[in-house]
Amino acid sequence: MPLLRLPGLIDPHVHLREPGLTHKEDLFTGTCAALAGGFTTVLDMPNTIPPTSTAERLAAKTRLAAAQAVCDVGFFVGATNDTDPSLVAAAGAGACGLKIYVSETFGSLRIDDLATLAAYFAAWQGPGPIAVHAEDVMLAACLTLAEVYNQRLHVVHVSLKSEIELIRQAKTRGQHVTCEATPHHLYLTQADLQRLGPYGDMRPALATESDRQALWDNLDIVDCIATDHAPHTRPEKESDNPPPGVPGLETALPLMLLAVHEGRLTMDDLIAKMHDNPRRIYNLPPQPDTFIEVDAEARYDFPASGWQTRAGWSPFAGMPAHGRVQRVVLRGREVYDEGRVLAAPGSGQVIGELATV
Amino acid sequence: MPLLRLPGLIDPHVHLREPGLTHKEDLFTGTCAALAGGFTTVLDMPNTIPPTSTAERLAAKTRLAAAQAVCDVGFFVGATNDTDPSLVAAAGAGACGLKIYVSETFGSLRIDDLATLAAYFAAWQGPGPIAVHAEDVMLAACLTLAEVYNQRLHVVHVSLKSEIELIRQAKTRGQHVTCEATPHHLYLTQADLQRLGPYGDMRPALATESDRQALWDNLDIVDCIATDHAPHTRPEKESDNPPPGVPGLETALPLMLLAVHEGRLTMDDLIAKMHDNPRRIYNLPPQPDTFIEVDAEARYDFPASGWQTRAGWSPFAGMPAHGRVQRVVLRGREVYDEGRVLAAPGSGQVIGELATV
Repeated sequence: MPLLRLPGLIDPHVHLREPGLTHKEDLFTGTCAALAGGFTTVLDMPNTIPPTSTAERLAAKTRLAAAQAVCDVGFFVGATNDTDPSLVAAAGAGACGLKIYVSETFGSLRIDDLATLAAYFAAWQGPGPIAVHAEDVMLAACLTLAEVYNQRLHVVHVSLKSEIELIRQAKTRGQHVTCEATPHHLYLTQADLQRLGPYGDMRPALATESDRQALWDNLDIVDCIATDHAPHTRPEKESDNPPPGVPGLETALPLMLLAVHEGRLTMDDLIAKMHDNPRRIYNLPPQPDTFIEVDAEARYDFPASGWQTRAGWSPFAGMPAHGRVQRVVLRGREVYDEGRVLAAPGSGQVIGELATV
Repeated sequence: MPLLRLPGLIDPHVHLREPGLTHKEDLFTGTCAALAGGFTTVLDMPNTIPPTSTAERLAAKTRLAAAQAVCDVGFFVGATNDTDPSLVAAAGAGACGLKIYVSETFGSLRIDDLATLAAYFAAWQGPGPIAVHAEDVMLAACLTLAEVYNQRLHVVHVSLKSEIELIRQAKTRGQHVTCEATPHHLYLTQADLQRLGPYGDMRPALATESDRQALWDNLDIVDCIATDHAPHTRPEKESDNPPPGVPGLETALPLMLLAVHEGRLTMDDLIAKMHDNPRRIYNLPPQPDTFIEVDAEARYDFPASGWQTRAGWSPFAGMPAHGRVQRVVLRGREVYDEGRVLAAPGSGQVIGELATV
């Protein structure tokens, strides 16, 4: 079995659901899924209950992670409609970045009016970038705000041809903008919804074949592959009002290795988009003596069960996979081996803690 | 009576309602209202029935104006969802600009998706600017599209503090963007709605006192005063479903002269915003031997009736006015004198015609 050694991967976009939604996932199960997927660092989104919108809430989340995480975790703070932007900015030093939901979420985290957006773009002091869920025309709006307020902009889960083309143009004219694409938007389209039903529903929604192809055609300007790991339980997905979101931590690497095998990107590209670029964009600390070992020739179909994520399912079940994570070593310690998580809860480090110590 | 002589004013934003809506206004009554207000040039918007979205429709509108207009008229072509952007762009040479309704209109003229907007910004060849009705966050989106596609952007009827502040920042960093404000957004707020009811309803809607004040505070970067003259009949306004829009051609100059009298802008500013700047932005041909004479000291309240516009009412009725247009001379001929329009229908010129001859 030829073993491929890769750096510990970084997923800059996950939802570990703690606090408040731990029936879906928590900081232990989510980071177990990360290790199983070859990720030694994940960056967690602020749409928990309560939202991670203040330094106090960020500290509380940090304490939870310090007790439970088995890989390294960074946290976004989130802009909300009911928090003073300067308070959110004050939490910036302990966070990997500011997340703004300009499109498609509900409640206090959804911000789509110019005055509030401008207040956040004006108030944010970094050091991380402003990461925006900004679909379609809202992406164009965020590019202006980033330019006007001299902010680094990171565009999460680009899904449309019009979006990736606009980002190409913005990059071409020199704007400091980066972006990520998800494996599900690279591999699935609206056509898969018939088969997947609610298990194929996420935000941004699956798009057209033309949109999907545009992501591959413009992969050179996609800085990161991010899973947007968004676990929900099967009963929730089969309810009358299924929530959008799919898990992705344990399927991303085999999907991207399949793309390498098929010649759609190089192994160097994969390492850039799943390690180097997220590390640079979020200025993440190095992880010495950290690597993953992958059975690079394993060919199989993704199973329907047996996942580390509490969600317990995958939209990719039955689809072809390439490569299997065998072993993960984090700071010199074996933390995952052939399906078993060996790390103790709390052995992962919290990046904000490191940054502020 | 001290007479003030000013250049023939230019209103870069009117709705003369022809073809299709001539019970509200037509190219004769609308241009009579223009002369009564001191305007010798008006630029007419494309949301007629049918919309002015092709060279053929622009030619038809031009023929109507050539037979009826008593002042000079230019026409916008309009982006629509059901026209190929290249067809609209092909009408550019005969138009004063491209109008895109990004916010707040209905039917085929409303365009708010990134792919279609980008197609129009990519296709437009000028020579006029792209004028956008883009409220709030949509303004930020249009600034990016204008930048990416190297288009001159003109922002119509700015009404919010957040908007004028964003335009200031875009101008400061060198973007080629211009904008206009209406007398109603400079003089009225939501507080006036109690008094005005449907007669105070327009788009953008009247805003807050803070928004209104911000327009005055940033008047130095407001390039044009435009009326957004949008006549509707009294029965329409008093119906169960009153359409938004108010007439403005006959009240704009006395309102702005009041501001000069009160020291809120200089006479030079007034001439810049009501003549020089719209002429430059839309590259309008000169009107030799053209001027207006104004009784600069007349103080009165706007009347409730007696208007040239077919609408026959004004949201400013009862409010203080300063100055009264006495006489208008267009290309050496007296076309308006003390309340009477002297020009024959069709004596106005169509600017597109001039441009293409």
